[in-house]
Amino acid sequence: MRGFAMTKIGETGWVEKEVTKCGPLDAICRPLALAPCTSDIHTVYEGAVGERTDMILGHEAVGEIMQVGELVKDFKVGDKVLVPAITPDWGSLEAQRGYAMHSGGTLGGWKFSNFKDGVFADANLALLPEGIDPAEATMLSDMVPTGFHGVELAEVAFGEDVLIIGIGPVGLMAVKGAALRGAGRILAVGTRPNCVSLAQEYGATDIISYKNGPIDEQVMKLTKGKGVDKVIVAGGDVDTFIEAVKSVKPGGIISNVNYLGSGDFVKIPRVEWGVGIGHVRIVGGLMPAGRMRTERLANLMINGRLDVSGMLTHKFEGLDSIPEALELMRNKPEDLIKPVITITY
Amino acid sequence: MRGFAMTKIGETGWVEKEVTKCGPLDAICRPLALAPCTSDIHTVYEGAVGERTDMILGHEAVGEIMQVGELVKDFKVGDKVLVPAITPDWGSLEAQRGYAMHSGGTLGGWKFSNFKDGVFADANLALLPEGIDPAEATMLSDMVPTGFHGVELAEVAFGEDVLIIGIGPVGLMAVKGAALRGAGRILAVGTRPNCVSLAQEYGATDIISYKNGPIDEQVMKLTKGKGVDKVIVAGGDVDTFIEAVKSVKPGGIISNVNYLGSGDFVKIPRVEWGVGIGHVRIVGGLMPAGRMRTERLANLMINGRLDVSGMLTHKFEGLDSIPEALELMRNKPEDLIKPVITITY
Amino acid sequence: MRGFAMTKIGETGWVEKEVTKCGPLDAICRPLALAPCTSDIHTVYEGAVGERTDMILGHEAVGEIMQVGELVKDFKVGDKVLVPAITPDWGSLEAQRGYAMHSGGTLGGWKFSNFKDGVFADANLALLPEGIDPAEATMLSDMVPTGFHGVELAEVAFGEDVLIIGIGPVGLMAVKGAALRGAGRILAVGTRPNCVSLAQEYGATDIISYKNGPIDEQVMKLTKGKGVDKVIVAGGDVDTFIEAVKSVKPGGIISNVNYLGSGDFVKIPRVEWGVGIGHVRIVGGLMPAGRMRTERLANLMINGRLDVSGMLTHKFEGLDSIPEALELMRNKPEDLIKPVITITY
Amino acid sequence: MRGFAMTKIGETGWVEKEVTKCGPLDAICRPLALAPCTSDIHTVYEGAVGERTDMILGHEAVGEIMQVGELVKDFKVGDKVLVPAITPDWGSLEAQRGYAMHSGGTLGGWKFSNFKDGVFADANLALLPEGIDPAEATMLSDMVPTGFHGVELAEVAFGEDVLIIGIGPVGLMAVKGAALRGAGRILAVGTRPNCVSLAQEYGATDIISYKNGPIDEQVMKLTKGKGVDKVIVAGGDVDTFIEAVKSVKPGGIISNVNYLGSGDFVKIPRVEWGVGIGHVRIVGGLMPAGRMRTERLANLMINGRLDVSGMLTHKFEGLDSIPEALELMRNKPEDLIKPVITITY
Repeated sequence: MRGFAMTKIGETGWVEKEVTKCGPLDAICRPLALAPCTSDIHTVYEGAVGERTDMILGHEAVGEIMQVGELVKDFKVGDKVLVPAITPDWGSLEAQRGYAMHSGGTLGGWKFSNFKDGVFADANLALLPEGIDPAEATMLSDMVPTGFHGVELAEVAFGEDVLIIGIGPVGLMAVKGAALRGAGRILAVGTRPNCVSLAQEYGATDIISYKNGPIDEQVMKLTKGKGVDKVIVAGGDVDTFIEAVKSVKPGGIISNVNYLGSGDFVKIPRVEWGVGIGHVRIVGGLMPAGRMRTERLANLMINGRLDVSGMLTHKFEGLDSIPEALELMRNKPEDLIKPVITITY
Repeated sequence: MRGFAMTKIGETGWVEKEVTKCGPLDAICRPLALAPCTSDIHTVYEGAVGERTDMILGHEAVGEIMQVGELVKDFKVGDKVLVPAITPDWGSLEAQRGYAMHSGGTLGGWKFSNFKDGVFADANLALLPEGIDPAEATMLSDMVPTGFHGVELAEVAFGEDVLIIGIGPVGLMAVKGAALRGAGRILAVGTRPNCVSLAQEYGATDIISYKNGPIDEQVMKLTKGKGVDKVIVAGGDVDTFIEAVKSVKPGGIISNVNYLGSGDFVKIPRVEWGVGIGHVRIVGGLMPAGRMRTERLANLMINGRLDVSGMLTHKFEGLDSIPEALELMRNKPEDLIKPVITITY
Repeated sequence: MRGFAMTKIGETGWVEKEVTKCGPLDAICRPLALAPCTSDIHTVYEGAVGERTDMILGHEAVGEIMQVGELVKDFKVGDKVLVPAITPDWGSLEAQRGYAMHSGGTLGGWKFSNFKDGVFADANLALLPEGIDPAEATMLSDMVPTGFHGVELAEVAFGEDVLIIGIGPVGLMAVKGAALRGAGRILAVGTRPNCVSLAQEYGATDIISYKNGPIDEQVMKLTKGKGVDKVIVAGGDVDTFIEAVKSVKPGGIISNVNYLGSGDFVKIPRVEWGVGIGHVRIVGGLMPAGRMRTERLANLMINGRLDVSGMLTHKFEGLDSIPEALELMRNKPEDLIKPVITITY
Repeated sequence: MRGFAMTKIGETGWVEKEVTKCGPLDAICRPLALAPCTSDIHTVYEGAVGERTDMILGHEAVGEIMQVGELVKDFKVGDKVLVPAITPDWGSLEAQRGYAMHSGGTLGGWKFSNFKDGVFADANLALLPEGIDPAEATMLSDMVPTGFHGVELAEVAFGEDVLIIGIGPVGLMAVKGAALRGAGRILAVGTRPNCVSLAQEYGATDIISYKNGPIDEQVMKLTKGKGVDKVIVAGGDVDTFIEAVKSVKPGGIISNVNYLGSGDFVKIPRVEWGVGIGHVRIVGGLMPAGRMRTERLANLMINGRLDVSGMLTHKFEGLDSIPEALELMRNKPEDLIKPVITITY
């Protein structure tokens, strides 16, 4: 099996590997469409998950099943499937506590491009619905579930004002998710024209540029000193939480879906956090996954509630274009939102 | 003060009354726009709240403040305000338990056209936002908060399939609310062409007519035997819950916002309710109200998330048209959704 | 393998069967202690789950593992384990929705003495903690998790007044659970002296006998017309909900953990249910299970928060005493709470 | 009116002031029992709420009503009442959002010894139940509601392992609250013998001393590397959260009820916080108050679930002992938990 892999920290290349052994509950797929992710860049060039050798990259895909394990009941060879980026062990103690994505330990549901090539076909795959474009469907692997999870963690309610920090592809999905969950005013922080324009299309009512001063000062000006009900962090770094806390009302929620790649401490400003007792909740979480979740998000596409076509700014054909697409993700040209690759056999 | 009143059960007419005394926390308003409600019909012609004499009707209005009590801090004479149908006592024990709408006892927050002409201006009124049409804003008194509350009680989540029984004005708002909260498929039960068409515009994906057989059988057919995740009851009677229970998955929720006017018992089918232990939750509730709630719902209009113009099928001018508008509500011609009256002074 | 079985509806007897084949994820246990359950009586004598032939009875046990499937990672032959009555498929769509006990369909997690002899050792078994008596530990299979789930579904909060209808073994665990979750006043409905006495020991503050008139009238008298915050139904029949609804405040919850064996409809009194909009929530559910859950409940025993010894009124030794113990459960002598059988090999 | 006051930052003394004017919704009480609080020390000696002149101290009391405003309905002169430390405006927008304690702005419900002498008798007072000792009842003003709120924010569930950092009076109430809510193992951090002993009586199963190394290392050792489900912070400073985050499982909650008096930032360790996406929730909150809340907590005393007598280590008689009692709170001798003063007229 040929694959585009991280050969070691900082380097990538094509490798030949044996086809992964298909466990009794597993399925082996070949990709019909796939999308590189910023996490791949973190993995390869920042060594975010540590050193790896010849680890095939990628965790956003639509696939075709080539092989199924003998205990798999609901899928068969030839099925076209949505493959979520996170593939939990659903019987794990963490899953039973409601946190399948952390099965076996924090972030343990993240297996692809990390330590294992997928598990539990019946529990984690979903059929690609008819009429859905595989290229668009790749957004259901990570961008949609991650961005929407920010909205869920923020418990956005009808008519609330929501600040979304960062409008890369995940932040854009958070904007769309917030609108789709009934937010009132949506203040989005970002500067790239493509992203700003898509954020507005997805429901952002106000655009804030961090170039114009601290985010919280702009938020307070726009909300006449009231602040917002909720903040979703989909970009920035460990210091972003300072502005987030300063922007939110007592009793508000700050939800984070941004992988924090560096820094020793996330900093929470003591006074603005109500000297510890202002009921501002801070929480961040890896995307939930699983078959039901993926089916539900696909349900939004099927029923016309969610259109991700604007996200796919750069389209490629054929496996051989992976290096070029990944390079795009690394360099992030101004007009990039997401690259996607379609493969025909 | 002249008002159109219930003179006794079954009869209405114009009455002259003294202007209600303005309590220290209260405000007295004159209507700028108002909408008759099916509840007014229940009140007058079915004696739903018992006998009343010369009780001025109406609880859906936008008003102008004529007088404020001496403890009112946030409103002044001349303010144009949204007036919610329900006006809770916010310090009551029920409010402190999270159920302000039942302040003082079940349904105790319902004071207008019931037993008292409103209380607590600061806590219960909201300024009419600039740029919002007063006629449309009357929908924020009852139709929007009631329909949307059905969605909240059903805890609709991203991509869930939702059945909405009844698409009168409240049911239509439940359809819109479900779409606005990220439902996937929305199955709506109704037959009147105007309502069906608006339901589709608001996001209904499937229309079910009760004339074509039991609702649950149609639901099961449409969902391939799976049933829906949630049911919102916005019409029907005490027997409607039988079909609702038969339509929902284990762990589902049936939420009711329909005033049940007759019948001794709501019936829950034992077997389909999982012999009592299928985790199907049944709950119904009066709309929440209050200033914050009303401001939030108005926020949806201001930010272009909610357009109620299609609801207002019959428009009138002047207080004198109240009897005609109320009569419409009583007879419900096929093309009626809501009548609304605008008043200029 | 010898087992005491339901040979057909209405009849029991010893049968010889082949040892159940151990699936790759399963474990085969022999019982160290077991307790017959009222459900066994429903199953055999009322045909509650339908006709069955030579189906070995029982679902409350502590066992010793005799065999494990090849995919089982966390258990080995010789381990002494707690065996929950319910053994869900954790990867099922229902489990992913939060309702593992209904995996595959309503009540689908109930497999023992129903349609299958257990699944998913890693996900569903828990080690018997050192120092815990196996006979007492059988209460962790069904009585504790079921009674405590009534408390969870009722969302009992600090200082709330709770009515518990029925103080058989499940109801007694609901009393204990309510006290352990911080209820204020606990009103318990029952008459058998043994049960009344244990209910008081577990925290009941008031005992109500249905022989003294309608429950709700007694509740209203005891609470000076206020009613209770929550009701847990652990006994009675489809008509019990009438008194439950009449006993609860607006915004209250009625939670049911009682298997409802007969009757077409559960009846909810329309007027007292706030004409459908009083925010009284009605919900019932099968016990949650799984390894984490079982470990947590065992944790209560280990740390001295839960003492079930008073529940075990009738103790037996040896497999051969099963018929006698089951007969006790069927006849329910006045001094019976639970029979338990210990087996040594 | 004579009162013991903060005369300026760093100084206290007896002052003569006019009796506070009783607003229409207010009540004026004289104290029957009162307890100084660490917050009084922060206020006077650390200037925690800013400069104040002749501000009478104290917010934990049982009182007798001397005067009521003309709109007060449920209380009358002579009533003996529980007076919560926090007295929210229940109609405020924050209250309608569920955060009455922050009415008018973060911590805005804290009025006594801050900026106003109380409001809203009907909504905020509760009758002293018969048979409850006024000295013990002072614990219902602040210690019980604050400590128990830590448990609520942590959403402690049956059988969970809980770490409680700090076992001063609030931490002790958190221990008791955690046990009363069904925690399994309770690990409590503290060293003073009186407190350790009472913590164990209240349900702590393990005592950790910060003198023996980092808290998280001890927690990990005691839990065999698993960590705890929840952490309640009832002592320490802005750096305490580092150890809290390192002690908790993915999906866990860290709840804080400790006033953080100094430091610029609360620090959250990035890696152990799951690089921002480990679903560890961090939240802290001022105690909820109000009449219902206070009645419910009193309900726990009335029904024998809560015994605070062990908390009252130092008892005084008469108003004149206030300076001595306050001095105790300032110096915190090793055997102090709480001082309390009883006054007879």
